[in-house]
Amino acid sequence: MDRSQIEAVLNEVRSGSTSVSEALERLRNLPFEDLGFAKVDHHRGLRTGMPEVIFAESKTAAQVAAIFARMANAGGNVLATRAAREVFEAVEAVEPRAKFHETARAITLMQTEPAAGKGTVGVVCAGTSDLPVAEEAAVTARLMGNTVELVADVGVAGIHRLLAQQMTLSSARVLVVCAGMEGALPTVVGGLVNAPVIAVPTSVGYGASLGGIAALLGMLNTCAPNVSVVNIDNGFGAACIASLINHL
Amino acid sequence: MDRSQIEAVLNEVRSGSTSVSEALERLRNLPFEDLGFAKVDHHRGLRTGMPEVIFAESKTAAQVAAIFARMANAGGNVLATRAAREVFEAVEAVEPRAKFHETARAITLMQTEPAAGKGTVGVVCAGTSDLPVAEEAAVTARLMGNTVELVADVGVAGIHRLLAQQMTLSSARVLVVCAGMEGALPTVVGGLVNAPVIAVPTSVGYGASLGGIAALLGMLNTCAPNVSVVNIDNGFGAACIASLINHL
Amino acid sequence: MDRSQIEAVLNEVRSGSTSVSEALERLRNLPFEDLGFAKVDHHRGLRTGMPEVIFAESKTAAQVAAIFARMANAGGNVLATRAAREVFEAVEAVEPRAKFHETARAITLMQTEPAAGKGTVGVVCAGTSDLPVAEEAAVTARLMGNTVELVADVGVAGIHRLLAQQMTLSSARVLVVCAGMEGALPTVVGGLVNAPVIAVPTSVGYGASLGGIAALLGMLNTCAPNVSVVNIDNGFGAACIASLINHL
Amino acid sequence: MDRSQIEAVLNEVRSGSTSVSEALERLRNLPFEDLGFAKVDHHRGLRTGMPEVIFAESKTAAQVAAIFARMANAGGNVLATRAAREVFEAVEAVEPRAKFHETARAITLMQTEPAAGKGTVGVVCAGTSDLPVAEEAAVTARLMGNTVELVADVGVAGIHRLLAQQMTLSSARVLVVCAGMEGALPTVVGGLVNAPVIAVPTSVGYGASLGGIAALLGMLNTCAPNVSVVNIDNGFGAACIASLINHL
Amino acid sequence: MDRSQIEAVLNEVRSGSTSVSEALERLRNLPFEDLGFAKVDHHRGLRTGMPEVIFAESKTAAQVAAIFARMANAGGNVLATRAAREVFEAVEAVEPRAKFHETARAITLMQTEPAAGKGTVGVVCAGTSDLPVAEEAAVTARLMGNTVELVADVGVAGIHRLLAQQMTLSSARVLVVCAGMEGALPTVVGGLVNAPVIAVPTSVGYGASLGGIAALLGMLNTCAPNVSVVNIDNGFGAACIASLINHL
Amino acid sequence: MDRSQIEAVLNEVRSGSTSVSEALERLRNLPFEDLGFAKVDHHRGLRTGMPEVIFAESKTAAQVAAIFARMANAGGNVLATRAAREVFEAVEAVEPRAKFHETARAITLMQTEPAAGKGTVGVVCAGTSDLPVAEEAAVTARLMGNTVELVADVGVAGIHRLLAQQMTLSSARVLVVCAGMEGALPTVVGGLVNAPVIAVPTSVGYGASLGGIAALLGMLNTCAPNVSVVNIDNGFGAACIASLINHL
Amino acid sequence: MDRSQIEAVLNEVRSGSTSVSEALERLRNLPFEDLGFAKVDHHRGLRTGMPEVIFAESKTAAQVAAIFARMANAGGNVLATRAAREVFEAVEAVEPRAKFHETARAITLMQTEPAAGKGTVGVVCAGTSDLPVAEEAAVTARLMGNTVELVADVGVAGIHRLLAQQMTLSSARVLVVCAGMEGALPTVVGGLVNAPVIAVPTSVGYGASLGGIAALLGMLNTCAPNVSVVNIDNGFGAACIASLINHL
Amino acid sequence: MDRSQIEAVLNEVRSGSTSVSEALERLRNLPFEDLGFAKVDHHRGLRTGMPEVIFAESKTAAQVAAIFARMANAGGNVLATRAAREVFEAVEAVEPRAKFHETARAITLMQTEPAAGKGTVGVVCAGTSDLPVAEEAAVTARLMGNTVELVADVGVAGIHRLLAQQMTLSSARVLVVCAGMEGALPTVVGGLVNAPVIAVPTSVGYGASLGGIAALLGMLNTCAPNVSVVNIDNGFGAACIASLINHL
Repeated sequence: MDRSQIEAVLNEVRSGSTSVSEALERLRNLPFEDLGFAKVDHHRGLRTGMPEVIFAESKTAAQVAAIFARMANAGGNVLATRAAREVFEAVEAVEPRAKFHETARAITLMQTEPAAGKGTVGVVCAGTSDLPVAEEAAVTARLMGNTVELVADVGVAGIHRLLAQQMTLSSARVLVVCAGMEGALPTVVGGLVNAPVIAVPTSVGYGASLGGIAALLGMLNTCAPNVSVVNIDNGFGAACIASLINHL
Repeated sequence: MDRSQIEAVLNEVRSGSTSVSEALERLRNLPFEDLGFAKVDHHRGLRTGMPEVIFAESKTAAQVAAIFARMANAGGNVLATRAAREVFEAVEAVEPRAKFHETARAITLMQTEPAAGKGTVGVVCAGTSDLPVAEEAAVTARLMGNTVELVADVGVAGIHRLLAQQMTLSSARVLVVCAGMEGALPTVVGGLVNAPVIAVPTSVGYGASLGGIAALLGMLNTCAPNVSVVNIDNGFGAACIASLINHL
Repeated sequence: MDRSQIEAVLNEVRSGSTSVSEALERLRNLPFEDLGFAKVDHHRGLRTGMPEVIFAESKTAAQVAAIFARMANAGGNVLATRAAREVFEAVEAVEPRAKFHETARAITLMQTEPAAGKGTVGVVCAGTSDLPVAEEAAVTARLMGNTVELVADVGVAGIHRLLAQQMTLSSARVLVVCAGMEGALPTVVGGLVNAPVIAVPTSVGYGASLGGIAALLGMLNTCAPNVSVVNIDNGFGAACIASLINHL
Repeated sequence: MDRSQIEAVLNEVRSGSTSVSEALERLRNLPFEDLGFAKVDHHRGLRTGMPEVIFAESKTAAQVAAIFARMANAGGNVLATRAAREVFEAVEAVEPRAKFHETARAITLMQTEPAAGKGTVGVVCAGTSDLPVAEEAAVTARLMGNTVELVADVGVAGIHRLLAQQMTLSSARVLVVCAGMEGALPTVVGGLVNAPVIAVPTSVGYGASLGGIAALLGMLNTCAPNVSVVNIDNGFGAACIASLINHL
Repeated sequence: MDRSQIEAVLNEVRSGSTSVSEALERLRNLPFEDLGFAKVDHHRGLRTGMPEVIFAESKTAAQVAAIFARMANAGGNVLATRAAREVFEAVEAVEPRAKFHETARAITLMQTEPAAGKGTVGVVCAGTSDLPVAEEAAVTARLMGNTVELVADVGVAGIHRLLAQQMTLSSARVLVVCAGMEGALPTVVGGLVNAPVIAVPTSVGYGASLGGIAALLGMLNTCAPNVSVVNIDNGFGAACIASLINHL
Repeated sequence: MDRSQIEAVLNEVRSGSTSVSEALERLRNLPFEDLGFAKVDHHRGLRTGMPEVIFAESKTAAQVAAIFARMANAGGNVLATRAAREVFEAVEAVEPRAKFHETARAITLMQTEPAAGKGTVGVVCAGTSDLPVAEEAAVTARLMGNTVELVADVGVAGIHRLLAQQMTLSSARVLVVCAGMEGALPTVVGGLVNAPVIAVPTSVGYGASLGGIAALLGMLNTCAPNVSVVNIDNGFGAACIASLINHL
Repeated sequence: MDRSQIEAVLNEVRSGSTSVSEALERLRNLPFEDLGFAKVDHHRGLRTGMPEVIFAESKTAAQVAAIFARMANAGGNVLATRAAREVFEAVEAVEPRAKFHETARAITLMQTEPAAGKGTVGVVCAGTSDLPVAEEAAVTARLMGNTVELVADVGVAGIHRLLAQQMTLSSARVLVVCAGMEGALPTVVGGLVNAPVIAVPTSVGYGASLGGIAALLGMLNTCAPNVSVVNIDNGFGAACIASLINHL
Repeated sequence: MDRSQIEAVLNEVRSGSTSVSEALERLRNLPFEDLGFAKVDHHRGLRTGMPEVIFAESKTAAQVAAIFARMANAGGNVLATRAAREVFEAVEAVEPRAKFHETARAITLMQTEPAAGKGTVGVVCAGTSDLPVAEEAAVTARLMGNTVELVADVGVAGIHRLLAQQMTLSSARVLVVCAGMEGALPTVVGGLVNAPVIAVPTSVGYGASLGGIAALLGMLNTCAPNVSVVNIDNGFGAACIASLINHL
């Protein structure tokens, strides 16, 4: 049933050939999928300030460039994650305003100013190996209108370097904490702050790290009551949640 | 927005205070969830011939009896799975027509004749340890209107006993094949018949059977092109699918 | 013991030099494997409408081309799955009628018209990353004589796009539903239709998707009673089962 | 070095027997752990509105009662989770104001009014088997000053029951979504709302549910960008995070 | 088609009403399963010297006793494995000649002398915790006609105790080596002897032993070229294979 | 070949009936296991100060008591681990000097003074749930002659409580650090001290703790360079290693 | 202590300067490792007929060629497994008598006739994908002096092709059965023969085959009492054990 | 709060404008992270004799060279692990004194003499495949001032080669034992010596070795009381711990 069917019902109501209660009954029996025009965008709110996103890893440079250009033409902000330099070069050829964030492996285009978050999003990681994931989170959060404080090189085996950053940590409204290997950093940070912590296990490690599973399990078993977890290496997803919270 | 809101729109259309195109536009903007009356029962067809079902394992005898009695009053057929004898005794006290199937650990009440399946549902298992799962499938399929042929004790380590049953296997329109340990039976049966095979891994075994995971993996890696798989010990689910196919 | 041995027994019976009961006894003692001529093709029925199939992934282009040519000469339909473009070029050189399905990574040759399925096979997938598996299922099902409706880009995180396709889903006689990541699509589809659903987990995802194991586990734990599961990325196998059901 | 040592330094500064720069140098060389008095409670903020908590599962009824009484005497609110009725009876004997929440397996004592959350915390679950975890989250969130809306029995295999609750879902400021088996509910809910979703896998299921691991993996692989995850059956933890967000 | 059908064909051949070639054609088209009388016992050889076996673990004492009595009446030897003392008492009541092997948790009845094995079967285990599995192997092997040498308490962490038994090890024609925890014993024994070694991982251990999986993996990764492996705790199966080899 | 055989060879050499080179040849051909007297106790050193040990978990109270009494008669120190109070009562009946350590689930008898360790063994744990494992380590280490400092309740989510104990931690010559759940404590402690850390994962936790596997993996992936790991809940083993190091 | 030391003791005994009992005491105190000449080759027997073996997979072509040449010079037979054609070319350049077995990925040199096995070693596999492992077993067994019967393309999903080979299977003294995917072939073969079956899981498969783990688990859970298992793809090891049994 | 803040407090104390008790109170309320100057290097002791370390595996040759040069300029010793020859060439170009250890895949620069360890560090491995890990341990330990004895090619399947090295093993003050496949070597060595053993599982193996997990599990389940374990292939970490113990 498409729009014209509903229009027909309404015309019959208007003309009096169908009573209101009869029309109600006919509408009631319409399966949802026939309504067609009733499809609303339930993500409207969520998408306020959200860029269009391309997961570049499994696509060719040409494919990413084509999608990026089309999205750019639509006028919104655009983000491509997991993009190598070659991919950026292909994108830049079609959209010269695009910017490359090498460590984050991200390409961004900001055309419209997103709504500003209420506080700061803290992004924390332990070693330099975790930086790509942390930077992906930072770039994503910034593109969504958040002020980001990035704190790196504060592993739990050298706890005093972390404690020296406590002022910065405490001032964040929400934190994204990335860690590989044993994945203990989010728990320690969670104990130092009063804000929600989004933990991101990274695939950094070898042997018994099982590609990030060890860090993931560690984070899920956290004894800090303010830590929740996303998928391994999912800096982008953690930033989305952090931004959502920071815009509340 | 509830029914009265739509009624209001229709009344305005009827009275002429709202044009048809304006009404269309207002309806178009209604989020689905406000329609209320548009909720249709999409399972209507599927449920033809399906009993009401109680998963008794995690409930007390009293709870099962109470639910059973309520469902029985509704007039349809009722099935309780994973029920011990004590549970049956509690059910029988409130609904004397209920029947107990000891091996299948199932309680049934048939009040209405279900639509008959087109062919036979074959239910096959290897050892006597797999019988509870196979019987659960058989009892379920019968309650859904299917003729069931149960073939037991035909393990793959004694292939000639299985081959001696080939006539029975070949005459089934769809088969449910249950096996624990190495879980090879569905593949061998799949190679002998021309019908869809629903494989049910059972938790029978010890050590490296990992509670049925070994059998499950074996079935998923089948080299027979007519075998699909359900969860470990899920004789009920396999019978539902088989019945659905047998009623096509 | 070969045909001539049995022939000898029969000749002796005919000439009267061996009694019937003695002949029976001699036949009774023949081990099965000696009968030779008793080997029947139990897959006859199943193979009606089934193409010859080559799993190209672990073979060289030259090997696939050689096998393809030989199968084509036999007169039936031929299907090569998991084939790259280079493989197709090698096949095309020896069999110019072969067709390449790039997304499905499949090569087909249809020489004979397969028996037509009774209804439509619905093939559903969530993201574009799942398309190769879904297309493999679609190409396979079509080569087996089925009308296929492909519904793509209907992930569970945007449920209204899926609901908008419910008419198409409901009209299918059997469905193949492919999904990676959390693998929830078959369950949601299973709740919307009254037909058997063959669920195909895909290896799409990263980190905790464990190469498709997460999706596989999700599907095995489905709470929809009409869903069974095949191996990860096994679009071909799902289509075989769907075709079998659609020809019942 | 304890307080008296620092006092001594200060006295020397005061008397002039130690210069400021010399005092600075001596303080500089103090290892942190000697400061003693510098231990601040970094959880101050977080704990506003947080009850004292007892994980009762691995304790005897007598132990829980003793701890509960002591905490009650301290004047704050008290929560015991995973408590059986026998445990409650022991607690009630020593603290008659304690309340038992049977489904949630929780004992509460509210003595002080916690700071009120800004919006509603939505708690959602699929089957009745998930109710204990969902109720644990609800009881916890209420004790922390949040208004809670509990939506039960909205599994993804019957998507229309869930859609009928969309108004309620959309009005929540943050949601806790509990699901066992395939664990798809948080993803579907995440697609319907614009708020952060805390997903709680439950150990409900059997066979390939692996004690909740299947649901956990499903949630970690969510394709909804607003979902983060906590440990299996950790309704308490999810409520803590939700309350934290709701008080921002 | 049963025996009478074949008899009918033969009678027709005899009477001349059917030609030999026609009879051949009719026999040729018989599906195997119809032959009936062609089912030979392919296990004849294997079963020489093999007792009837009951896996008692999942059966009641009454059930085991009933099966045991029936098997005993058939005249052969009988073995029940994984039997508690209560089970033995029930068996003894119906079959007073039955013997109980407490450590092995086995009940035996020897009525006929099995064929003697050619050499000695060595059964080796490390700690006293592995003794039940080792004794099960020893009791089984003896009931199958083998001379058994049991070597216990020779763990790899005290290698000299093992070396002191080398003469005994070297004189065995085949060995069954049981070990839990790290499961290294079969590899070390395999390096000391020139005979086939059947390795049996046991479920002895805790934590990372994963119920015997650690020992199983260790044995599968053996660097000794004469070691093969059976399921965890499967002393019975290892003895069957050892006996088979010892009777070659 | 035993001592007398070698003696015979030597006597023949002495009497001149065997030449030296011939004697050499005969000795050369002796398999090692025949030497008998060459078996030295390679554990001599290690066993200095080590008690006799009984793993009580899988034994009856009577069995433990019998073994304990026999060991006590031998004059050395005795330790029974994983012992319930009933077990102690049985032991006490036969050996009244035995002491019970309730939290540690250990029974000890010290009859001889072990050699004193050179420094202090620090035993650290996070929650009270880890105390049984930590106490097992402490009791074991003390029985081996070590001074033990036990630091409890210093979880990583409240890092300042741990830092307040740094003086104690730093003064230990070797540390045993026990932790369940995310298992991060050994890494943090490892970063604070200059001594070897033996990490003991505990089975404390639920859900994704997988019975201690999560903590185990976390510890194996430590980024502290002075941490090695033992099996889950193996407080006894960690204490043995710590004592060994402390006696160097 | 080397031979000369023992010689010195003997000379002293001979000359009378050392008494027998004193000599005994001095020999008694020799640590085993000093005896030197007491090191016997315990593998002598096993190595009769065994080639020298090179695992080529992780070595360069040059390395394999160098080792191969050195071993060839020693006069025995030589086997290199997991060798690519390039490796063979490097070997052939230094040892022109070497032979390449392409499917088996093996290089052999037979210089001495090994002792002949007593019967036939059957090597069985299902699909052509399993052939490399089966051929590795066949080449290895032949080089060790065994007559080998290779039976290929007899998967369990087409059971009649397997049954047609039963005569061949039954005539083998020992069998090596290779299978990937569900790994059911060894169990079915085990039920058809009376000989020991060495099962070799192969890494053939995808998705839930988990690199051969599914086949491995299936084989370990076999219900045939004559099947033991080796590591995934270990055709070489299976042939060693089969040869050992065939030479008994 | 930085140094100047504390200075101000002290000046006020000195001038008398702030009392000592008031000053104490103000200092008490300083959060730790503000102290700044109180950050001591708690790793001082540990780092005595420790080189600066670069994990080269995930870095480009240019990156490693740059970091290496900078560290070299700081005057201490430098170690790069997991470095290929190309990486060394880049390092050598900027720091000609650097040395390459090919098997160990390590680059070292020794500029200062580290404190000498008290005894010998034994490094033991089974096959030549484990040599890279063993050599990494040896190179690391030497750079930290330890005398190292490397014992290779002493696998447990040829136990006499290991026993022949017992003198060497017994003379070590601490041992690092590396093994892949079944990982039994540390347990056997642990039983032969009286020193702490650091076990290093290696990723050597295939199939069920699961990338070293089998060896890791075997080592964690050791029955030797002096064995602790580090991550798979972590020769560097094991050497750090061994060096620490050897310097006690």
